[in-house]
Amino acid sequence: MEIEALSIGQYSFVQNAYSFGFAVMAAATLFFWLMKSEIAPAYRLAVTITGLVTAVAAYHYFQIMTSWGAAADITSGEVLSTGQPFNQAYRYVDWLLTVPLLLIELILVMRLSQQETIKKSTILGGAAALMIILGYPGEVSETGGLRFVFWVLSMIPFVFIVHQLVVGLKGSIDSQPESVKKLINISVYLVIGSWLFYPIVYLFPLVGLTGGAAITALEVGYTVADIVAKAVFGVFIFMIAVRKSKLEGETKPVSDQS
Amino acid sequence: MEIEALSIGQYSFVQNAYSFGFAVMAAATLFFWLMKSEIAPAYRLAVTITGLVTAVAAYHYFQIMTSWGAAADITSGEVLSTGQPFNQAYRYVDWLLTVPLLLIELILVMRLSQQETIKKSTILGGAAALMIILGYPGEVSETGGLRFVFWVLSMIPFVFIVHQLVVGLKGSIDSQPESVKKLINISVYLVIGSWLFYPIVYLFPLVGLTGGAAITALEVGYTVADIVAKAVFGVFIFMIAVRKSKLEGETKPVSDQS
Repeated sequence: MEIEALSIGQYSFVQNAYSFGFAVMAAATLFFWLMKSEIAPAYRLAVTITGLVTAVAAYHYFQIMTSWGAAADITSGEVLSTGQPFNQAYRYVDWLLTVPLLLIELILVMRLSQQETIKKSTILGGAAALMIILGYPGEVSETGGLRFVFWVLSMIPFVFIVHQLVVGLKGSIDSQPESVKKLINISVYLVIGSWLFYPIVYLFPLVGLTGGAAITALEVGYTVADIVAKAVFGVFIFMIAVRKSKLEGETKPVSDQS
Repeated sequence: MEIEALSIGQYSFVQNAYSFGFAVMAAATLFFWLMKSEIAPAYRLAVTITGLVTAVAAYHYFQIMTSWGAAADITSGEVLSTGQPFNQAYRYVDWLLTVPLLLIELILVMRLSQQETIKKSTILGGAAALMIILGYPGEVSETGGLRFVFWVLSMIPFVFIVHQLVVGLKGSIDSQPESVKKLINISVYLVIGSWLFYPIVYLFPLVGLTGGAAITALEVGYTVADIVAKAVFGVFIFMIAVRKSKLEGETKPVSDQS
């Protein structure tokens, strides 16, 4: 990435987007964990993992923000490279950990049988990890050809996950209480909708979008997609957990009944 | 270690692996400690120690990552030594503390008699500490001969521990409830499987594997082995604790029933 292609305004805008990303992820984490004790024990694992996803994302946004700051010197009034490369790989390191986990939190909040939970978590989590691992070599490759090959390879587990979410989970979603069915469907479409952004921007360099505006759109877009897929999605998981706690008569945690 | 033997890609890949290691260990720690209150009191000691192991590992991964960053300057487009040596000893400091503890968490989650617990923890913990202490002089020695001598010495407690886990614990594992027997066996083989990596890479320098690719394989491999032996192993310990809590009718923690 050519950081000198950015104007001061673009450079600062991206930095502010990272800072916003960090603040949202950290705040979401604290929210989920602080509220965990208010929901029924059966849903605390899902809500704990929801906070784990945003916690890991908060850490990586902090690292990305630091790396962005170290990559450029703007004291002269323009964006000059310091020679320190901007580490884009933090995103992949983050996704490798968070994407399988966020699919698992969706499975967990549905409270399927133990066998179903383990089976679906393994399949979806494994496919998600494979998708990220296959995307990485293309992201760091210097040639457009390799980038495209790994885009195609990475799209295979991507399409498989979308299919699993829409078709494979249909039966499980149908068996959910009426009052949360809509929330679960929204969560599924939030994941799919925000994920569509990633394979599109991945192709940006291939179609010649490499200037300052493209870099800005890409970095800000990634940040918005991450916030939707992790923090906003997490709020839906939390709401589902709250409603199901109420339905199952466990609104008040056992500890409050003493 | 000759850090200048690495390409920028290799150097960055190792740095990302360390960051991933830190994120996994820190996330695992938070997970175990946040979920501790959800399991039966009898298993909270095991789960607390499980989180302690990953917490200590998170600290050391942070130190290793910082040391790796300070050892090289990559602003010129290639990896140049800053003169600051990369501190490999952090791994040994970490293992000296975490390896005895992770064997103890396995003993604790089996909930043996008090006498058995103390006896097995002392034997396995002591052998593990001895194994690490004997490995260190070979790791820092300049000559291949000394490296090999300490490899052999360190392998004695290593083989003893593997024997204890496979043969010595057999009776205790057989007395466990049917639904967790498989999980305990997987945990034992996770430890043994991931540990096999360490004595193999220890011999790398002896067979002339000292280039950039060997250093990368070694550092990334250590990180993966650590993640399996501490975080993944810890998740199994946690799952065993959850299932045994349920079996013993203590799904709702006792402290909440007061």
